[in-house]
Amino acid sequence: MSIPLSIKWNGQKLTILDQQKLPHAIEYLTLEIVEDVYDAIFSLKVRGAPAIGITAAYGLAIGAKRHDTDSLEAFQQYVEKDAAYLNSSRPTAVNLGWALSRLKDKVREAKNVPQAKLLLLAEAVEIHQEDEASCRSIGEHALVLLQGQTRVMTICNAGSVATAKYGTALAPFHLGSERGRGFEVFACETRPIYQGARLTVWELQQSGVDVTLITDSMAAHTIGTKEIEAIIVGADRIAANGDTANKIGTYNLALLAAAFSIPFYVAAPVSTFDLSIEDGTAIPIEERNPEEITHTNGKPVAPLGTKVFNPAFDVTPAHLITAIITEKGIITADYQKNIFDLLGASTGKGERI
Amino acid sequence: MSIPLSIKWNGQKLTILDQQKLPHAIEYLTLEIVEDVYDAIFSLKVRGAPAIGITAAYGLAIGAKRHDTDSLEAFQQYVEKDAAYLNSSRPTAVNLGWALSRLKDKVREAKNVPQAKLLLLAEAVEIHQEDEASCRSIGEHALVLLQGQTRVMTICNAGSVATAKYGTALAPFHLGSERGRGFEVFACETRPIYQGARLTVWELQQSGVDVTLITDSMAAHTIGTKEIEAIIVGADRIAANGDTANKIGTYNLALLAAAFSIPFYVAAPVSTFDLSIEDGTAIPIEERNPEEITHTNGKPVAPLGTKVFNPAFDVTPAHLITAIITEKGIITADYQKNIFDLLGASTGKGERI
Repeated sequence: MSIPLSIKWNGQKLTILDQQKLPHAIEYLTLEIVEDVYDAIFSLKVRGAPAIGITAAYGLAIGAKRHDTDSLEAFQQYVEKDAAYLNSSRPTAVNLGWALSRLKDKVREAKNVPQAKLLLLAEAVEIHQEDEASCRSIGEHALVLLQGQTRVMTICNAGSVATAKYGTALAPFHLGSERGRGFEVFACETRPIYQGARLTVWELQQSGVDVTLITDSMAAHTIGTKEIEAIIVGADRIAANGDTANKIGTYNLALLAAAFSIPFYVAAPVSTFDLSIEDGTAIPIEERNPEEITHTNGKPVAPLGTKVFNPAFDVTPAHLITAIITEKGIITADYQKNIFDLLGASTGKGERI
Repeated sequence: MSIPLSIKWNGQKLTILDQQKLPHAIEYLTLEIVEDVYDAIFSLKVRGAPAIGITAAYGLAIGAKRHDTDSLEAFQQYVEKDAAYLNSSRPTAVNLGWALSRLKDKVREAKNVPQAKLLLLAEAVEIHQEDEASCRSIGEHALVLLQGQTRVMTICNAGSVATAKYGTALAPFHLGSERGRGFEVFACETRPIYQGARLTVWELQQSGVDVTLITDSMAAHTIGTKEIEAIIVGADRIAANGDTANKIGTYNLALLAAAFSIPFYVAAPVSTFDLSIEDGTAIPIEERNPEEITHTNGKPVAPLGTKVFNPAFDVTPAHLITAIITEKGIITADYQKNIFDLLGASTGKGERI
């Protein structure tokens, strides 16, 4: 049993786990050219903001190796073009642009083309390793908070396959498993896309974690009858006041946690904070295709033409969050102040990082 | 546009709506012999406790017509045998045994076989009409409570197709539609069996009600952003203290209603009260087949062999219920006292009715 990895770099070759085929087939794909990387991101074979960023970074470095020129300027133009192309594979993924920018900066530091190629690859490896370290650190902090708590609920997949390794919300369970510290995890299936049933259940099973699948509608009954002691979730974006956007259904769980007086934890790297957004009301909520709800496996469940409301995310108000667990430490209320202090100390800016 | 009926009796012939095929095919089946009726109940072509009771009652009367004997005693034995057979089609359905008992009592009143046959049929018609009147009355009471409230959320299908007509939780919407009083109903899809997506959405559309489908996980976000003003649900069993067992997911909604300070209503006929059960802790919760969660449309979603918790119902504590709406009136806390008063007045017993 081992923690599944979605991205592997062996020094020569980039392979990714095809998450579209999970959990029924475990297939790794080798991405050889920049177009392969674009396709893997575009078609959701790789998903999860950190995993997308890492894959794109390797993609840019792999593409750059093939550009045959002695002119640093011409090389830089090739890289810019590739970066723009890769960035368009999933325009709303924050980590994608962030990772590509880091690589483009490296090219500017280079003295010649061979050096630029090496710097690009080194930076991709650096981003990959940083993310693993960051997730591991989140897991360590989470394990401290979860001391003495065994039965934990989660939603969606803030997991190893969405990151370099370990994940965010799932990091304490993977680390716990490595150390013989057993959790009983209850995974909400996460309608409409079933990331809980498809990904979280699978990856925790791979890691030897005791995981039980429930529907989202069973959360209250399960918290009560199975004596759930804490809920932990990931985050897509966290506002300056701590309001947290995450997969639809998260807000339900936060309210249930409050009703049952159990802690509700958000686990996310500091790159998830968006200090340009004052509070949750300003976070835009994407509405997705009605067929995600009206159909399953391509077959209609509801009557054709049924009116649907299909928000992909919801926003959990900061006052419902017991703590935000980052790689740099644990934040609790007063969030406004503590988020600024944490980010200010680490970036010196207090801006979006 | 009209309210869909799941059971039709034209004086000669019993036809039922095949609910297994909804909403993609609207097929009525004629049930000619007692075996047809058994099969319709067993295979869930007819579902919903009141609808099952009514169908079984007609089934017993139809079967009795074919028993060719002059001996009242022999006839009675035929009827007892048919009743036992029909009762075994869904042993846990309370209304099934209750309806069959009412018919068996009628045979004992008869002076001869031809009279017994007529009394059986008359009692089946009576049960059918009583249920329609009861649902209509629930709807009238609910309309009073929902005065001034337009945006209402519901779960599962406590609807017309589960009863003689109108349903319980859906009765106010059907009645409102008849009178030009428009509601905006938000129907939770109701995992794992999708009764909300398959049945509630369809039947409200048929009735001309403005209905929007959401996943169960979207409830909190929808209550907040769509300004839901009330939640109304049905009930499978209500304990003497008002604790209410209903479709899994109901308890989630009751806690969300409390968090958003909106009323949470339970609509159910008085036959749903079980005064032999002191409180919700004594209500047994059926656990169903894991494949209901791990598979959709027969195809696996989760990994094969995934551990599942699949309770079919949950219990909402009475203190979360704003009012219980019955055909005999609206009950609010103190439930213990008010339920006993309502049932005592109507049955003279204060026992299970």
